Amino acid sequence: MGKPVELRCVLCGASYAPGEVEYTCPKCGLDGTLDVLYDYEEAARTLTAGALAGRAPSLWRYGEILPVEGEENIPSLSVGWTPYYDCSALAEEYGVREFFVKDDGRNPTGSLKDRASAVGVARALELGQRTVACASTGNAASSLSGFAAVGRLKSFIFVPEKAPAAKVTQLLVYGATVVLVRGDYADAFRLATAAIEKYGWYNRNCAINPYLVEGKKTCALEIGEQSGWNPPDRIFISVGDGCCIGGLHKGFSDLMKMGFISRMPKITGVQAEGAKPILDAFKSGAERVMFGPADTVADSISVGAPRNWAKALRAVRETEGDMVAVSDAEILSAIPELARKTGVFGEPAGAAAFAGFRKMAGEGRLGRKERVAVVVTGNGLKDIESARKSAGSPIVSEPDIDRFSAQLERSGFPC
Amino acid sequence: MGKPVELRCVLCGASYAPGEVEYTCPKCGLDGTLDVLYDYEEAARTLTAGALAGRAPSLWRYGEILPVEGEENIPSLSVGWTPYYDCSALAEEYGVREFFVKDDGRNPTGSLKDRASAVGVARALELGQRTVACASTGNAASSLSGFAAVGRLKSFIFVPEKAPAAKVTQLLVYGATVVLVRGDYADAFRLATAAIEKYGWYNRNCAINPYLVEGKKTCALEIGEQSGWNPPDRIFISVGDGCCIGGLHKGFSDLMKMGFISRMPKITGVQAEGAKPILDAFKSGAERVMFGPADTVADSISVGAPRNWAKALRAVRETEGDMVAVSDAEILSAIPELARKTGVFGEPAGAAAFAGFRKMAGEGRLGRKERVAVVVTGNGLKDIESARKSAGSPIVSEPDIDRFSAQLERSGFPC
Repeated sequence: MGKPVELRCVLCGASYAPGEVEYTCPKCGLDGTLDVLYDYEEAARTLTAGALAGRAPSLWRYGEILPVEGEENIPSLSVGWTPYYDCSALAEEYGVREFFVKDDGRNPTGSLKDRASAVGVARALELGQRTVACASTGNAASSLSGFAAVGRLKSFIFVPEKAPAAKVTQLLVYGATVVLVRGDYADAFRLATAAIEKYGWYNRNCAINPYLVEGKKTCALEIGEQSGWNPPDRIFISVGDGCCIGGLHKGFSDLMKMGFISRMPKITGVQAEGAKPILDAFKSGAERVMFGPADTVADSISVGAPRNWAKALRAVRETEGDMVAVSDAEILSAIPELARKTGVFGEPAGAAAFAGFRKMAGEGRLGRKERVAVVVTGNGLKDIESARKSAGSPIVSEPDIDRFSAQLERSGFPC
Repeated sequence: MGKPVELRCVLCGASYAPGEVEYTCPKCGLDGTLDVLYDYEEAARTLTAGALAGRAPSLWRYGEILPVEGEENIPSLSVGWTPYYDCSALAEEYGVREFFVKDDGRNPTGSLKDRASAVGVARALELGQRTVACASTGNAASSLSGFAAVGRLKSFIFVPEKAPAAKVTQLLVYGATVVLVRGDYADAFRLATAAIEKYGWYNRNCAINPYLVEGKKTCALEIGEQSGWNPPDRIFISVGDGCCIGGLHKGFSDLMKMGFISRMPKITGVQAEGAKPILDAFKSGAERVMFGPADTVADSISVGAPRNWAKALRAVRETEGDMVAVSDAEILSAIPELARKTGVFGEPAGAAAFAGFRKMAGEGRLGRKERVAVVVTGNGLKDIESARKSAGSPIVSEPDIDRFSAQLERSGFPC
């Protein structure tokens, strides 16, 4: 397994030894998220394409560049190595050379966040922590509660009192202590931060804890390997707080450093029209992201104050990527189209990446020779209500074959 | 890939050539479900433990004994090779030697049924069929609609008019034509059967179409391989229409015939107290199953008229297995216990297998030296409402650290 040698601030470039700081850059505060760096030359001695061929299908196959030293601390849930589908019919339809879908909804609790929680829980165990905590009602929370359960850690999840009962249920099922905070998400976040500090719990927040992005980067490592080390020219991913897109960038950067790939894919972030502070900064050329409103059906990316904006902006700018905003209607209509043409049923934030691809293709912003991939970050079973809004309607029939046939023939055999 | 050489009736033993009949035994009618048999000596030439080590992690690794000849007909969705967890803490707690969980909720649409649909759609493509159909509101339906989508087949799903909107949504998302039949499940089943016959559609019903059980058997093949060809002494699985338990039995039988394993696990069926016609026949020693009522929270096994009863009874009797009935309360309380101790969040029918294990262990019906496995047949995200009933409650707190701390300390740090 791996051993980080340096933590480097994404804003000021300050360098720290591992252990010197655990969360963000002391000089830059919360905005100064850190990159976890390794001795890549050392890692490349054992992490080779040949060695990978014989390793088990999980994200731990990349152990040399993951911040977990002891195998005994790896949680038992099988995580990562999600499918990467080649969908040539969609490539043709949308006028690009190749089209791939990475289905991260196949992770154990149904989202890409499982990659971060797996590493976070392993790291907490390594540090001898007994309790992990976060504020979230979404995928990060359910993921943390699941991995904490198998890691035999206590978990505290702080959620706003109006959190949907269905989401709270998944947390309770895994045995998390769920704290319903009277107030909104900001209140829940503040109470969580205060409690984490007071009790010394382990902080599972990707934008604060740099080791969690190390888990997320494995999505990019897998795309690299699954594409035969010839990654797509452009990758679409939805953007909320900026950690997933930051993870993609970090993964491909690591692959470049180790010589597995020779060019970076253009990382293209998709935000909802109702929550697009990172896109606004990108378009205006601003150095920093201004926080703004958040209102979209895609709850996982409904973020007005993205904590990891610096990594997100860097991912797009350094790779000469792009950003695109999609409406709620575009997100909802992307769900059935993606499911019908690829078999991947994504939650709204997951299908948003496909909506962004579709939009840019429609606007002629993609090259005909581009090889494109879309990352679906969460499983559609997590939000059936939203899917219902654009899935269409059933036929209603009497239980009589003659009447059914007449009806079917009148409608010219639908489907 | 494989080529069946014989179809044999489970009731009368009559033998047919593949192609001579497609569904059930003409002599025995619907009760006479068929076994699909291969030239196992021929299959064993290439299907070896060594060869398997180099094959991709999906159910198609067992191609020599699957009824699909052309690789071009394999649907692209990644299916099978689901996790098999070793949970030693549970073994100790319940007084058995080893305890394993096979998590089939990790399949692409979230259930073991995906194994059957994958093979069914491949087979329909091989036969040049353009449309597949079934009557179901549950996992078989969502699974068929997903695999039909990637196989570019039309799908007709017949559901009773009171089918839950959430389940209908998943079908519509995948592009199935959903026919809401005025009446109950029996009406939907009758109309589906009549329409399938009239239009010559491919029948995706495991109890009628013997090739689908071939898909389900791969769960057993994987358990065999994942246990290092030393399968557990006893395997628990929930039982509705009898196809899943029939599939387990067929898989282990095939492994015996090929010499991969040297003894059959005791297959132990778990039914809900409100729907236990197969258990009743087993306990009374009856030759046939009498159909009865069906009323349980575990919708996937709420079957009063199991169509594949013959394979189910044979699975238990031939392996000297057992059957056990569990109440709805026992099923619901099994959901959080399973999730907290193994990380596997199952739907009610999935957790029912664990409830059955727990009950038999509590009654002293398991040996201390037994190595036990439980198959979780469906993902908990499919039925959040049921999970909520036994998941516990959140703490409600003001957004104030001092008040939160006081509350926490009063309660003695829950979790």
